[in-house]
Amino acid sequence: LAPPHIILRRALIEGRQLPNIARDIGLFMARTLFRGSDLHMPTKDRKADLALFADNVELCGITEDLVFTDPYFDAKLNRHTSPQLDGLVAELRADRDLKVEAQRLKHLFAANAETLLHGDLHSGSIMVTDTETRMIDPEFAFYGPIAFDVGMLLANFWMSFFSQRGHEDKGRRDAMRAYLLGVTNETWAVFRAEFSVLWRSERTGMLYQRSLFEDQGDILAAEQALDHVLHQIWTDLLGFAGIEVHRRILGLAHNADFETIADEDVRASCEAKALKFGRHIAVNRRQIYSIDEVNS
Amino acid sequence: LAPPHIILRRALIEGRQLPNIARDIGLFMARTLFRGSDLHMPTKDRKADLALFADNVELCGITEDLVFTDPYFDAKLNRHTSPQLDGLVAELRADRDLKVEAQRLKHLFAANAETLLHGDLHSGSIMVTDTETRMIDPEFAFYGPIAFDVGMLLANFWMSFFSQRGHEDKGRRDAMRAYLLGVTNETWAVFRAEFSVLWRSERTGMLYQRSLFEDQGDILAAEQALDHVLHQIWTDLLGFAGIEVHRRILGLAHNADFETIADEDVRASCEAKALKFGRHIAVNRRQIYSIDEVNS
Repeated sequence: LAPPHIILRRALIEGRQLPNIARDIGLFMARTLFRGSDLHMPTKDRKADLALFADNVELCGITEDLVFTDPYFDAKLNRHTSPQLDGLVAELRADRDLKVEAQRLKHLFAANAETLLHGDLHSGSIMVTDTETRMIDPEFAFYGPIAFDVGMLLANFWMSFFSQRGHEDKGRRDAMRAYLLGVTNETWAVFRAEFSVLWRSERTGMLYQRSLFEDQGDILAAEQALDHVLHQIWTDLLGFAGIEVHRRILGLAHNADFETIADEDVRASCEAKALKFGRHIAVNRRQIYSIDEVNS
Repeated sequence: LAPPHIILRRALIEGRQLPNIARDIGLFMARTLFRGSDLHMPTKDRKADLALFADNVELCGITEDLVFTDPYFDAKLNRHTSPQLDGLVAELRADRDLKVEAQRLKHLFAANAETLLHGDLHSGSIMVTDTETRMIDPEFAFYGPIAFDVGMLLANFWMSFFSQRGHEDKGRRDAMRAYLLGVTNETWAVFRAEFSVLWRSERTGMLYQRSLFEDQGDILAAEQALDHVLHQIWTDLLGFAGIEVHRRILGLAHNADFETIADEDVRASCEAKALKFGRHIAVNRRQIYSIDEVNS
């Protein structure tokens, strides 16, 4: 894309408060993820398409190992801010609950072909102006759980939040931090609202069919099922988000949000907070019920 | 297969207590389901194989609608013992928690391509002698959740249990009933034991890798993960089992276990008990922790 579009990650590092990203990204995720699943698409079309993407195993393999496994042991390609984080990193790599949870999430990610994902939906895969938001880099696209795209995206907003402390050389970033928490909140709210609209208007696939619910006059049953589905997405996205934070600080592929912080002590301090946050939301994800709990 | 092999369902209707089935079937399920998953198989082989089976959508579609949806509304192909069961059937088809749960299980079944399933592993797909057990009819084979095969199989033992009352014309079946509960118990115990052996000896796939656990000297972490995986299989198999019981009494494809009970009042009484049992284990599956609770 030609200028004035810039990479969202870059804009957030510069402290720009883009007014439309939460709404645009929330709508994008709800629409693509809902419509690519058996909630909307004829299942034979989804399965035929899934077979086409099944040979994207090399890129999937990258995600699977780099994201879910390598950060949690002393893998060859790993790096982290050292020696400042050495103690915390050793602690996380000895953290049984965390490692088991990371593998359960890998299991879910690898086995669950619920919808066609973007597959690499972080703030470096989004280009923005003040009025436009465009998703790029779909080469990791494949079938996986709805919660994966949403979790990775929110994780990148949370990492931006934790990295702001390292970008205060030209002034405090309190307003930017508040903006970023607002963005996570609004993105999730827009996603849920749009997903609910589609649930009520475009639920034409083989799952949760109207013949069982609305057609029998039981609209509340369909709403109860929607609550379950959204709660499952929420629980799983927290796990994927926590693991995404970890792999960006402990693994091979780091984020410019932290990497551009020149002072290594400041960077390590930002990263340590993010690592602990990631551990909390991944391990305790079944006991966290709202994004307000996460953001407070 | 030539005689003396007979269909297991037939043998159970006749009241034969086969000594080896629990062990043979438990081992078969643990080995095929473990070894076809990312716990053991290289993930690129599983995904290539998955693509081959993706065109088995027509048979999958049969399972999806006949098993998970049709029994819960007034679908064209349904039948049930009428008028005896009319009241209970109406109750189940108005049961919001049950219908939502059935659709959540359909969602899990359709999206989760964890391993290569037999896909139709009921007592009519198994041929036996006193010393041999052979699985037949693999035409429904496809990728799905481990718990699906196990749940369908156990459901068929439980249905045999509930149907025994209808086959007492030549004498009481108390011993046969006790035998059948013992078979469900032993099948699940053998499955768990063998799955655990394979977990410790053949866990060579990309999930729960030894590099994170044993190679770091943390054997207990691998055992903790095994407990989680087995508990998830248990929770899900109860759901699949409950739905399998329902579709065999409310849907298109009925079981000879009940169908061969000539007295319709007796048959309906057996079926009603099975329907209530199926509803209980499907809806309350997350609160049931052992097979003893189910069998008591």
